[in-house]
Amino acid sequence: MAEKSKKPQKLRARLPRGLADRGPAEIAATRAMVETIREVYERYGFEPVETPAFEYTDALGKFLPDQDRPNEGVFSLQDDDEQWISLRYDLTAPLARYVAENYDALPKPYRSYRFGWVFRNEKPGPGRFRQFMQFDADTVGSGSPAADAEMCMMAADTMEALGIPRGSYVVKVNNRKVLDGVLESIGLGGEENAGRRLTVLRAIDKLDRISDQGVKALLGEGRLDESGDFTKGAGLTFDQIDKVMSVVDPAWLDNDNQFNVRQLSNILSDVNLGREGAEELRAINEIVESSGYNDGRIRIDSTVVRGLEYYTGAVFEVELLLETKDEKGRPIRFGSVGGGGRYDGLVSRFRGEPVPATGFSIGVSRLQAALTMIGKLGTRPATGPVVVTVFDRERLADYQKMVSQLRAEDIRAELYLGNPKNMGNQLKYADKRNSPCVIIQGSDEKNDPDGAQVIVKDLILGAELAALDKDRDDYLQRQADAQRKVPQLGMIDEVRRILARHDIDWN
Amino acid sequence: MAEKSKKPQKLRARLPRGLADRGPAEIAATRAMVETIREVYERYGFEPVETPAFEYTDALGKFLPDQDRPNEGVFSLQDDDEQWISLRYDLTAPLARYVAENYDALPKPYRSYRFGWVFRNEKPGPGRFRQFMQFDADTVGSGSPAADAEMCMMAADTMEALGIPRGSYVVKVNNRKVLDGVLESIGLGGEENAGRRLTVLRAIDKLDRISDQGVKALLGEGRLDESGDFTKGAGLTFDQIDKVMSVVDPAWLDNDNQFNVRQLSNILSDVNLGREGAEELRAINEIVESSGYNDGRIRIDSTVVRGLEYYTGAVFEVELLLETKDEKGRPIRFGSVGGGGRYDGLVSRFRGEPVPATGFSIGVSRLQAALTMIGKLGTRPATGPVVVTVFDRERLADYQKMVSQLRAEDIRAELYLGNPKNMGNQLKYADKRNSPCVIIQGSDEKNDPDGAQVIVKDLILGAELAALDKDRDDYLQRQADAQRKVPQLGMIDEVRRILARHDIDWN
Repeated sequence: MAEKSKKPQKLRARLPRGLADRGPAEIAATRAMVETIREVYERYGFEPVETPAFEYTDALGKFLPDQDRPNEGVFSLQDDDEQWISLRYDLTAPLARYVAENYDALPKPYRSYRFGWVFRNEKPGPGRFRQFMQFDADTVGSGSPAADAEMCMMAADTMEALGIPRGSYVVKVNNRKVLDGVLESIGLGGEENAGRRLTVLRAIDKLDRISDQGVKALLGEGRLDESGDFTKGAGLTFDQIDKVMSVVDPAWLDNDNQFNVRQLSNILSDVNLGREGAEELRAINEIVESSGYNDGRIRIDSTVVRGLEYYTGAVFEVELLLETKDEKGRPIRFGSVGGGGRYDGLVSRFRGEPVPATGFSIGVSRLQAALTMIGKLGTRPATGPVVVTVFDRERLADYQKMVSQLRAEDIRAELYLGNPKNMGNQLKYADKRNSPCVIIQGSDEKNDPDGAQVIVKDLILGAELAALDKDRDDYLQRQADAQRKVPQLGMIDEVRRILARHDIDWN
Repeated sequence: MAEKSKKPQKLRARLPRGLADRGPAEIAATRAMVETIREVYERYGFEPVETPAFEYTDALGKFLPDQDRPNEGVFSLQDDDEQWISLRYDLTAPLARYVAENYDALPKPYRSYRFGWVFRNEKPGPGRFRQFMQFDADTVGSGSPAADAEMCMMAADTMEALGIPRGSYVVKVNNRKVLDGVLESIGLGGEENAGRRLTVLRAIDKLDRISDQGVKALLGEGRLDESGDFTKGAGLTFDQIDKVMSVVDPAWLDNDNQFNVRQLSNILSDVNLGREGAEELRAINEIVESSGYNDGRIRIDSTVVRGLEYYTGAVFEVELLLETKDEKGRPIRFGSVGGGGRYDGLVSRFRGEPVPATGFSIGVSRLQAALTMIGKLGTRPATGPVVVTVFDRERLADYQKMVSQLRAEDIRAELYLGNPKNMGNQLKYADKRNSPCVIIQGSDEKNDPDGAQVIVKDLILGAELAALDKDRDDYLQRQADAQRKVPQLGMIDEVRRILARHDIDWN
C-alpha cells in the first residue's frame, strides 16, 4: 500500500458563487438607506417585525417568481425531524405565516415593516446575488383601496427621502384584474390555462425591451431575436392578440390618471373582472389625487405586470427614470427598484378565511447600487482612528495609556499593534487606515527638559502639502502645522485642533 | 379507485423548532444595543465588515464547540456544483476566510467588527435558539499582548456603555497555554490525547456549578450527580488531579492580578508552555494596569476555559455578576455574556504561514435577555401613530388628505383602514396601536357654521381620566382637554399640543 502524503492540503479562501463580502463604505451606505426608509415607514404608522431566516418549506409555498416547480430556486434542507425547511426567498411569505400564527393578538389592520436578507438558490450573474436585502411594508387585514394608495405614496416619499428628485422616479400602478380579465375574456381563464397565462404575462413584461412588435410575436407563434434564438409564443390568434394589446399598448397611456382609468373602463366594458380592476384603480387614484401625488409621482399604467403569481389586485412598480453611463459610455437605465401589490390569498392559506393584504418591497441591494452610481450615497472610506505609534517597544503600556486618554474623550484612537520595527511602516499603516493624525513619542520627547512632549503629525495636511508649491508663503506655515511638538499634557487639545481643521466628526 | 378528497388541506402556521419571531420592543432594544456596541468599537478604531450567511463547509472547518464530529451542529447543504456549503455558526471562521482572501489589500494589523445572525443546528431549549445574534471584534495580524489587552478593555467599556455598572460585571482573562502546559506536564500532550484533554477542560469549565469536589471526581473516575446519573471521568491519578487543581483551584485567586500571575509562574515553574502563558498574562496585565482597568474590571483568572478548540493563547470571558429572581423568586445568575481569545491557527489554515489573531464576541441575544431582565432595556411598546378615523366612508380621500398633512409635518399618522362600520372599533384599534390621539370628522363638524372643524381625542389623557375622581376640580378641565373640537385648520397645532403634553418625540 502506498504511503499517503501527510502534507496538509492548504485550504483555498473563497466564497461560494453568488455571495459577496461587504466593506465599510458599503455597510455605511446600507445603514444610511435603511435608516431613511425606516423613518418614512414609521411616519406612515408602520411598526417593525422580524422573522427568522428559516421557515417550513410548505409555509413558503410555491409562490416563487418565474419558477415552474415548487421550491425550485430555494435553499432547502431536511430537519432532524424529517421536515423540510427553507431559507426565506422573500419577506412576504414569512409575514403571511407570522400574521396567521399571531392573528388574534395583532391589531387589525396590521401595518408592519421589516428588512433583512433573503436567499435565492438561482444561477448568479452580474449584479445578481444569491443573498440580497429587501425592505418590505405590508398592510394585512384591509381590502380598502386606501391601503394600496398608501403603499404607492409611501414608495414615492421613500424615493425622495433617499435623495431621488421628483421626476426622476415613477410609481406605476396597475391591477391584476385588468390583465386577468382580458385573458379570461379571450378564453384563457381557469386553472388549466395557468401556464399559457404566464407566457402571456411574461411577454407583456418585456414591452420596454422588445417593443410592441416583439411582444405581439411572443403572443402569437413566437419570436426570433437578434441572436437568432427562437422563443416559442403563446399561440394566440390575431383577434386575441389585438384584445390583449388594446389593454397593454403603451401608446394610448396618458399622464392623466383619470383618462387612463376611463380608457381601461371603456376597453373592458364587456369584461366583468376587468371592469372591477379599473374601478379599483379609479378608487386608488382618487386617494392619490386627494394628497396631490398624481403630479407624475404615481401613474396608472396598464403595462405593469409583476412576476409573482400571488398578486390578486393592485400591483405597483417603482422605476428609476435616471440614466447614467457605464464605463464604456453606454447608457444604463436602472429600471425597477421595488414593487408590490395586493395578495389576498397568502394569509388565507393558513386561516381558511379571506384575509386581504397589500404590500411593497424595496430591493435594497439593487437600489443601493443605483444610488451609488448616481452619487447619492458616499463611497469614500470614513476617517480612521488616531494612531498612537510605538517608538520604543518597551513602553507599550505608556502608549496604550495615551490611547485610553484619547478614547476617554470620545476620540477614535488605537495603538499600533503591528511589528514596531520601523516608523515608516507605522505611518504607512496610518495612511491605509485613513487616519487624521498620528502620535509619536521617542526618548527625546519623553525626556524633554521642558517636560514630556509628543509629536502630533497631521496626515491630511501632510498629504496636501505634498501637492503644494514649496516656495509659497503659506507652505512653511502649513508645514509647521502638519507636524508639531506639543507638551504631552496638551496632546488631546492638539488632536482636537486637527480634527476641527478638517471638519472631522465621526458621529 | 377511490376519489381523493379535493378539499384543500389548511396549512398550519408555525415556525420550525428553535426559531423565533421578534416584535417592535425587542427589535428596538437590539437596535439600541447594537448602536451602543458599534460606537465603542469604532472609538477603539475597529471598522465594519460583513460576510454572507453561507461559507464553503471546509472553510468553516471542524472548529465547532463541544462537537466530536466535524460539521455536526451546522446547517449544511450540497450546492449545484456538488460542493457542500454551510450557514455560518459563528463570525470568527468567516472572518478568517475573509482575511485570507483579501490579505494583501487589508491594513495589517486588521481591526474589524461585525454583527449578524449565526446558525446552529442543535437541539433547541429554553433560551437556546438555532438562530441568534453575535457581535464580534477581531484584530488579525498582531501577536502583541496589547491586542489581547485591548479586547478586554473594550469588553469592559462596552458593558458600561450598555448600562451595566462597574462592579456588576467582570472580564476574566486566562491563557490556554497555562492549561495546556499543565496538561502536557502530566502527560496529556499530543494529538492522541485530544479527547482526554477535552474531558478535562469540560470538567474544569463546571467549577462554578459543581464545586471543586465535583470537578475532582470528573477528573478522576467519574461523578454521580444528584439525579443519580453517572458521568465517566477523565481517569487521572491523584497526583495528576492535584497538579491540575493547583492551577485552577479558585481558592488561591486574589483580586490582585499581579499576585495571580506570580502564583501561576511559581506553580508552573517547571512547565515551559505554562510559564509562557503566565508571562503573556503578565504582559497583558501590565497594559491593563497602565489604563487603570485592573480595578476589578479585568481579572486574571486561571479557571476560565472557553469551549472552542481553536484558541491558542489568551482567553477572555465576560461575566455578569448581577443577580435577579425568576417568577418563583429563585435567584438567576446570568453568567457569561461574551468571550473570546487568541486563535493564531485559524487564518493560517488558508495562508500556509502563521497569522496571529485575537477576537472577542458578544452574545447579543443572550446579553439582551439579561439587560431586559434587569430593566436596562425598554420593553414598553413605542407610541403609535395618530389615527385619522373614517366617519363617513364616502369621504376616504378627505381623511387621507388629513393624514398626508400630518405626515408632511413629520407627525406619525395613519388612516384607519379597517371596516369603518363603527367608531368604537376604530377607537379600540387606536388603543391597540398605542396611539396618542385620534382625529374624527363627521358631517356636523365638516359643515359647522364656523367653518370645518375636527374632533381631536387625547387617548392618553382619556385613559388617565378613567382613573380619576370625578368630583375633583381638575377633572372637568382635563376632560375638556381630552376631547376638543378645533377648526380643521388648527388640527396640526392641536396634535402638536397633545404630543408635547405627553413628551412624545418619536426620533
